[in-house]
Amino acid sequence: MVNNAEKNALVVSAHSADFVWRAGGAIALHVARGYQVHVVCLSFGERGESAKLWRRGNMSEEDVKLTRRAEAQAAAEILGASIEFFDLGDYPLYADKEDLFRLADVFRRVQPHFVLTHSVSDPYNYDHPRASNLTQEARIIAQAEGYRPGEAIIGAPPVYCFEPHQSEQCLWKPDVLLDITTVWDKKYAAIQCMEGQEHLWEYYTRAALQRAVQAKRNVGIASAHVISYAEGYQSLFPRVTEDLS
Amino acid sequence: MVNNAEKNALVVSAHSADFVWRAGGAIALHVARGYQVHVVCLSFGERGESAKLWRRGNMSEEDVKLTRRAEAQAAAEILGASIEFFDLGDYPLYADKEDLFRLADVFRRVQPHFVLTHSVSDPYNYDHPRASNLTQEARIIAQAEGYRPGEAIIGAPPVYCFEPHQSEQCLWKPDVLLDITTVWDKKYAAIQCMEGQEHLWEYYTRAALQRAVQAKRNVGIASAHVISYAEGYQSLFPRVTEDLS
Amino acid sequence: MVNNAEKNALVVSAHSADFVWRAGGAIALHVARGYQVHVVCLSFGERGESAKLWRRGNMSEEDVKLTRRAEAQAAAEILGASIEFFDLGDYPLYADKEDLFRLADVFRRVQPHFVLTHSVSDPYNYDHPRASNLTQEARIIAQAEGYRPGEAIIGAPPVYCFEPHQSEQCLWKPDVLLDITTVWDKKYAAIQCMEGQEHLWEYYTRAALQRAVQAKRNVGIASAHVISYAEGYQSLFPRVTEDLS
Amino acid sequence: MVNNAEKNALVVSAHSADFVWRAGGAIALHVARGYQVHVVCLSFGERGESAKLWRRGNMSEEDVKLTRRAEAQAAAEILGASIEFFDLGDYPLYADKEDLFRLADVFRRVQPHFVLTHSVSDPYNYDHPRASNLTQEARIIAQAEGYRPGEAIIGAPPVYCFEPHQSEQCLWKPDVLLDITTVWDKKYAAIQCMEGQEHLWEYYTRAALQRAVQAKRNVGIASAHVISYAEGYQSLFPRVTEDLS
Amino acid sequence: MVNNAEKNALVVSAHSADFVWRAGGAIALHVARGYQVHVVCLSFGERGESAKLWRRGNMSEEDVKLTRRAEAQAAAEILGASIEFFDLGDYPLYADKEDLFRLADVFRRVQPHFVLTHSVSDPYNYDHPRASNLTQEARIIAQAEGYRPGEAIIGAPPVYCFEPHQSEQCLWKPDVLLDITTVWDKKYAAIQCMEGQEHLWEYYTRAALQRAVQAKRNVGIASAHVISYAEGYQSLFPRVTEDLS
Amino acid sequence: MVNNAEKNALVVSAHSADFVWRAGGAIALHVARGYQVHVVCLSFGERGESAKLWRRGNMSEEDVKLTRRAEAQAAAEILGASIEFFDLGDYPLYADKEDLFRLADVFRRVQPHFVLTHSVSDPYNYDHPRASNLTQEARIIAQAEGYRPGEAIIGAPPVYCFEPHQSEQCLWKPDVLLDITTVWDKKYAAIQCMEGQEHLWEYYTRAALQRAVQAKRNVGIASAHVISYAEGYQSLFPRVTEDLS
Repeated sequence: MVNNAEKNALVVSAHSADFVWRAGGAIALHVARGYQVHVVCLSFGERGESAKLWRRGNMSEEDVKLTRRAEAQAAAEILGASIEFFDLGDYPLYADKEDLFRLADVFRRVQPHFVLTHSVSDPYNYDHPRASNLTQEARIIAQAEGYRPGEAIIGAPPVYCFEPHQSEQCLWKPDVLLDITTVWDKKYAAIQCMEGQEHLWEYYTRAALQRAVQAKRNVGIASAHVISYAEGYQSLFPRVTEDLS
Repeated sequence: MVNNAEKNALVVSAHSADFVWRAGGAIALHVARGYQVHVVCLSFGERGESAKLWRRGNMSEEDVKLTRRAEAQAAAEILGASIEFFDLGDYPLYADKEDLFRLADVFRRVQPHFVLTHSVSDPYNYDHPRASNLTQEARIIAQAEGYRPGEAIIGAPPVYCFEPHQSEQCLWKPDVLLDITTVWDKKYAAIQCMEGQEHLWEYYTRAALQRAVQAKRNVGIASAHVISYAEGYQSLFPRVTEDLS
Repeated sequence: MVNNAEKNALVVSAHSADFVWRAGGAIALHVARGYQVHVVCLSFGERGESAKLWRRGNMSEEDVKLTRRAEAQAAAEILGASIEFFDLGDYPLYADKEDLFRLADVFRRVQPHFVLTHSVSDPYNYDHPRASNLTQEARIIAQAEGYRPGEAIIGAPPVYCFEPHQSEQCLWKPDVLLDITTVWDKKYAAIQCMEGQEHLWEYYTRAALQRAVQAKRNVGIASAHVISYAEGYQSLFPRVTEDLS
Repeated sequence: MVNNAEKNALVVSAHSADFVWRAGGAIALHVARGYQVHVVCLSFGERGESAKLWRRGNMSEEDVKLTRRAEAQAAAEILGASIEFFDLGDYPLYADKEDLFRLADVFRRVQPHFVLTHSVSDPYNYDHPRASNLTQEARIIAQAEGYRPGEAIIGAPPVYCFEPHQSEQCLWKPDVLLDITTVWDKKYAAIQCMEGQEHLWEYYTRAALQRAVQAKRNVGIASAHVISYAEGYQSLFPRVTEDLS
Repeated sequence: MVNNAEKNALVVSAHSADFVWRAGGAIALHVARGYQVHVVCLSFGERGESAKLWRRGNMSEEDVKLTRRAEAQAAAEILGASIEFFDLGDYPLYADKEDLFRLADVFRRVQPHFVLTHSVSDPYNYDHPRASNLTQEARIIAQAEGYRPGEAIIGAPPVYCFEPHQSEQCLWKPDVLLDITTVWDKKYAAIQCMEGQEHLWEYYTRAALQRAVQAKRNVGIASAHVISYAEGYQSLFPRVTEDLS
Repeated sequence: MVNNAEKNALVVSAHSADFVWRAGGAIALHVARGYQVHVVCLSFGERGESAKLWRRGNMSEEDVKLTRRAEAQAAAEILGASIEFFDLGDYPLYADKEDLFRLADVFRRVQPHFVLTHSVSDPYNYDHPRASNLTQEARIIAQAEGYRPGEAIIGAPPVYCFEPHQSEQCLWKPDVLLDITTVWDKKYAAIQCMEGQEHLWEYYTRAALQRAVQAKRNVGIASAHVISYAEGYQSLFPRVTEDLS
C-alpha cells in the first residue's frame, strides 16, 4: 500500500500555458489529495502562442520566453506543482534522441502514478501531437530494463490526453470526466496568470461548465452529486480494476 | 454513502450461456463484494447455440430450451446471481415494444449500479448487437420521468460490453481489464454447467489467461500485483471520477 | 436562377424542442434571407424530455403534450418557421412505413433546398438517430419517380446534422460552422419558450459562444469578421460547387 | 476435394439490376470456372430505379415490374446464372421474419461456396444495406443446427460486398480486385439488357477500367499479367488459407 | 470586399506532375475566375514517377529532372498558374526545418485564399502524405506572429486534399465535388504535357467523368445543371458560412 | 509460371525475437512449401526486450546483443530461414535514409513474393510501427525505376502485418488466418530458443490455439478441415485474384 505522500504525477505540456487551460483542475485536485505533481513544458510557446506579446512591439524572442516562463511559474505555484522547462522551441517543436532521453529520465526520477499530456491528433497544431508522442515514447523507454541498466524502471502509469482546443476536429473523445468543482478557484486563478491569452480565459471557463453538465448527465440527473466544473480526458490504455461500479 | 448490501448490478445476455463465458468473473467478483447481481437471458439460444443438443436427436425445441434453462440456472447459482428468462426466441432474436418495456421495468426494479451486456457489433451473430441495443434503449427509457410517471427512475449506470467471440472482427476494444483471479474457480465451475458447448470451456479459459497477461502489462511488469485471470470490457460512456490514479 | 422568395428548407426534430436548441440559429438566419422554413416535430418529447413538467404532479400525458406543443409553436413563431407535429410518441420513437411515407410527402410538398436533422449516432438517445434515419430515407423515397408516379420529385438537397448534446460521444464532427450572430437574439428568445428545460438555456448559449470562437479560428484571427455566436453542422453528402474559397 | 461441377455461389441483389452492374463479372467468371451461380433479387427496383420507365407514361407498377423482371432474366441468362425474385417491394425494401427464413432456405438449398451482396452502408440508398444485413443474417440462421433441425446446415462461406455507386461515401474499401478481363464481353452484354438505365452503362464500364488499372498496380507494373477489366469487393470475414503469396 | 484580382491560391505538389492530374481543373477554373494560382513542386518525381524516361536509357538523374521540369512548366502555363520547384528529392521526399520555413515563407508571400495538396494517407506513396503534412505545418507556422515577427501573417485558408490514385486505400473521402466542365479542355491539354506518363491520361479522364456523374447525383438528377467533368476534394477544416443551401 | 524453388519471402522484425512469436508459423510453412524465406532483424531488442538478461547482472549491452543474436540465429535455423541483422538500436529504433536504402536493397536482392512485418499502430511499442513504416517505404523505393537505375525493380508483393501483443489496442484486425498446424512443432521449437522471454512461450501458444478456433469458425464448424494452430495477419493491400471461393 503506497502512502499518499509518495504519490506522484507527471504533466507534459507542449507550450508553457497548455497545462493550465487543459489540466489545471487535475493538477490542483491531486495536489489537494496529497500528490506531488510535476510539470514539464517542452517549449514556451514563444512563436506560436504569444501573439499578444509580439503585438506590443520591441520584443525579442528572449523577452517573450522570459515573460512566458514567469507566467507559467506563477500558474504552477498557484496549482501547487513543480515545473521545469526544456526550451525545445516551438512552431515547430522538434525533439531529437537526447530530448527523448531527457524526458525518459524525468519519468525515472518522478516515478509517476499517472501522466497527462496532449491528444494524438490536432490539425491546428502540430506541436501538440508531437508532445504527446514524445511523452508516450519516453514512458516506454523509462520502462525498459536495458535503458540505463541498474536504475529503477517505472511501472505502467496510465496516460490521459487532455482536451484540445477543437475537440471533434482532433478526434478526441473523452472517456473520463474529472470533477474539479472543489479546486475551480485555483484553476481560474492560474488561468489569470496567462496575461497574453486573455481571450482564452472565458473559453476554458465555459469548457469546464459544459463538461460539468455532461458529467452530471453521466452520473444521473437524479443523483445528489453536485458538479459545477469538470475536465475531460481520453485514456490511452485500458485500466485494470476489481470494481466496475 | 451507500451500503454494499444495497448495491446491484444487471447483466443482459442474448442467449442463456453468454453471461457465463463473457461475464462470469465479473458476476462472482461483485457478488463476493456484496452486490446483488441479476441476470436476464433474452433467449435460451435454443436454435443457434445448442448444436450438440440437437445432434443427440429426438429433441424438440421445448426439450432444448428446458436443458438450456437448467444449465443457466445452475451456472447462475454457482456465481451467486439471480436469473430470469424472457424467452424471446433466437436466430433471430426479435424484440417488440412490449419486450423493451419489460426490460425497462427490470431496470426500474433492479436499480443497477452498473450494467453488462454484448458488444454493439458482431458480424457472426446478429442477436448479440440486438441484445446490446435493447439493453441500452431500455436503460434510457427507465431514466425517463414520463415513462410510468410516479415510479422511481434510474440514474445513469455505466454500461460495459463484454468480450465477443472474435474480438477484432466485432470492433470491440477493451478499456477495462477486470482482475478475476480470486473468483476464477467459481467461473470455471459455472462454465462446466454448459455441457452442450464443451468446445468453448478451454477457449474461454485461455481468453482469461491472455487478458490476465495483458492486465499485468497495463499495471507494469514491476508491480507486485499478481493477476492470473481477467476479463475485458469496453465501456460505452465516460466515467465520472475525482481520481486519475 | 431561383428567386429567394421561393427557397425552402426542412427541419426534422425528434422531440418538440430539439429544433430550437440545435438549429434555431439556422432557421432564423435563413428566414431572414428569405427562405420559408418548415419544421416537423416527430414527437412532443412527452416522456423523455419533459421531466420538469412531470414533477409538477397531476399531469397526464395529454397535458404534457399540449404544453410542449404550445412551447414549440411559440418558438417556431419567433424563429419565423411553420411547424407541424407527427405525434409518433417518444421513448421509444418508432415509425412504420406509413410514417415514412407521410414524411416523404412533406419532402415532396416543401421541395427543400436543404435539410436539417439529428446526428446518426447518439448513445444517450435512441430517438435521435431514428429521426435522422427516417429523414434520410424519406428524402430518398421522395426522389424516386416510382413513388406516387406523376408527382414532382425532389432534387438532392444537402442534409446537415445538427449538434447533439455530447458531441464527441455521438461521433459527430462539424464540418460547417454557421455564423448566427445577427439572429442570436431571436434564437435566445425562442430558447426561452422552453420553460420545462431551463437548465439547458445556458448550456446552449455557451455552446453557441464556443462554436463562435472556433469559427473565428477557422477564418483566421487576423480577419475583420466578427463572430459572436455560431452553430455547428455535419454534412452527410459532398457539396457540389465551382468555388473553393 | 470438391468437384468443380458441385461448386455453387449465391448473389443477393436488392433491386433487379444491381447484380449486373456490381457483380456481373464475378458471376460470368465463376460460371466459366464451373460454378452454379444463383441470383436472388429481393425487389425489382420498381419504384426507385426505374425512372426512365416511369417517364414513358401510362405505366402501372405491375408493368414496370414485368419489364424489370424480363431485363434481369435476360441478363442472368447471358451471365449463365439462375435467378429468382422475392418481390419484397423497394423504396423501402422491408423484410419480415418470413422473408428472412425464405432467404435462409435458399442458403440451405444452394449451399454456396461464397456469397456476393451489397455494402453495409450507403447513405444514398437504404435498401442496399438492408439487403446486405438480410443476407448476412440469413447466412447465420442457415448455419444453425436448431433452425429446421435435421436439414443439412451450411458452412461458413465468405461474403463479399460488391461496389456501391459512390464507394467512398459508403465507407466501402475493396480488399479484393477480381480480374474479369476474360468475361467482360458477357458482362457488357448483360449490362445492355438494362434498357431503363442506359446512363449507367458507361459509368460501370469506366469503373471496370479503373479497377483494372488498380489491380495492375497491385500485382506490380513489371508483371506480365494483362488486366483490362476488374471488379472490386470488400470481404466481411477473414479468409483461412495456407498460402500467403 | 476583396477584389477578385487580389485573390490567390496555393497548390503544393509532391512530384512535378501531381498538380496536373489531381488539381488541374481547380487551377484552371480559379484562374478563369480571376485568381492568381501558385504551384510549388517539392520534387520532380525523378526517381519514382519517371519510369518511362528511365527506360529510354542513357538518362542521368539530372536529365530526368530537366525533362520533368519542362513538362511541369508547360502544364502550369496552360493552366495559367505560376510555378516553382523546391527540388527536395523524391523516394524518399524528406524535408528538414529549413524546407519547412521555405514553404512557410511561400505562404506568407502568396497569402492564399485556399490551399490544395495531397491526402494525409497513402500506402502506395509515402511522399504524398509527407507533402500534405509539410504543407499543413507550413501553414500553421505562417499563421504565427512569432515567426519572423513583423511580417504579415496569413489567415486560416481552407485546405483541400486532392484525389489520390486509389482513393479508398488512402481513406480519402471527398466532401467537395468541383465542377470543372468549363475548363476541361485546358486540363486535358495540360495532362498531355506529361509525356512520360501516358498511361495515366485516360485514367484521370475517366476519373473526371466518374466524379461528374457523382456530382450530378448530388445536385439531383432533376436539376438542369449539366456537369461533364469534376474533381473531388476532401477538406481538412470546417468551413464558416452564413448559407447552407 | 514461376517454379516453387524460386519463390521468396521477406520478414522484417523490429527486434530479434518478433519474427518468432508473430510469424514463425508462416515462415516454417512456406519453407515447407519450397520458399526461401529471409529475415531482417532491425535491432536485437537489447534494451527493451531483454529484461531477463539484464537482471542477470554483469551484462554489457554488447553481451546482451550477442546472446540475442545467437537465439535469433538458432530460431531462424529451426524455421529454415536465412537471417541478417541491421543493428540499428532499439528503444528507440531510429532509421535514417541510408538504413532505408539498405532495406530497399534487400528487397531488390530478395525479390519477395510476399512480405511480413509489424502492425502500423502500437501504443505499447513505438519501434514496431517504425519497423512497419520503414518496410513499407523500402518496398516502394525498390519498385522505383529511378532508384539505382538499371537494377531489376521489384513487383508489388503483398504486405501482411503480423499479430501485435495486444491486438485490439493496436487497431489490428486480422483478415487472414493462416493454418500452421503442420509446422507447429517447428514454431514451438523456435520459440524455445528465446530463453530470455520464457513468460511469452505460453502466451503465444495460447494465441495460436485461439486463432485456430477462429479459423475453424471461419471455414465452418461442419467442415472436415482440422485446424489446431493458426496465425492471424492483416493485409495492407487488396489482393488480385480470379477466384472468390
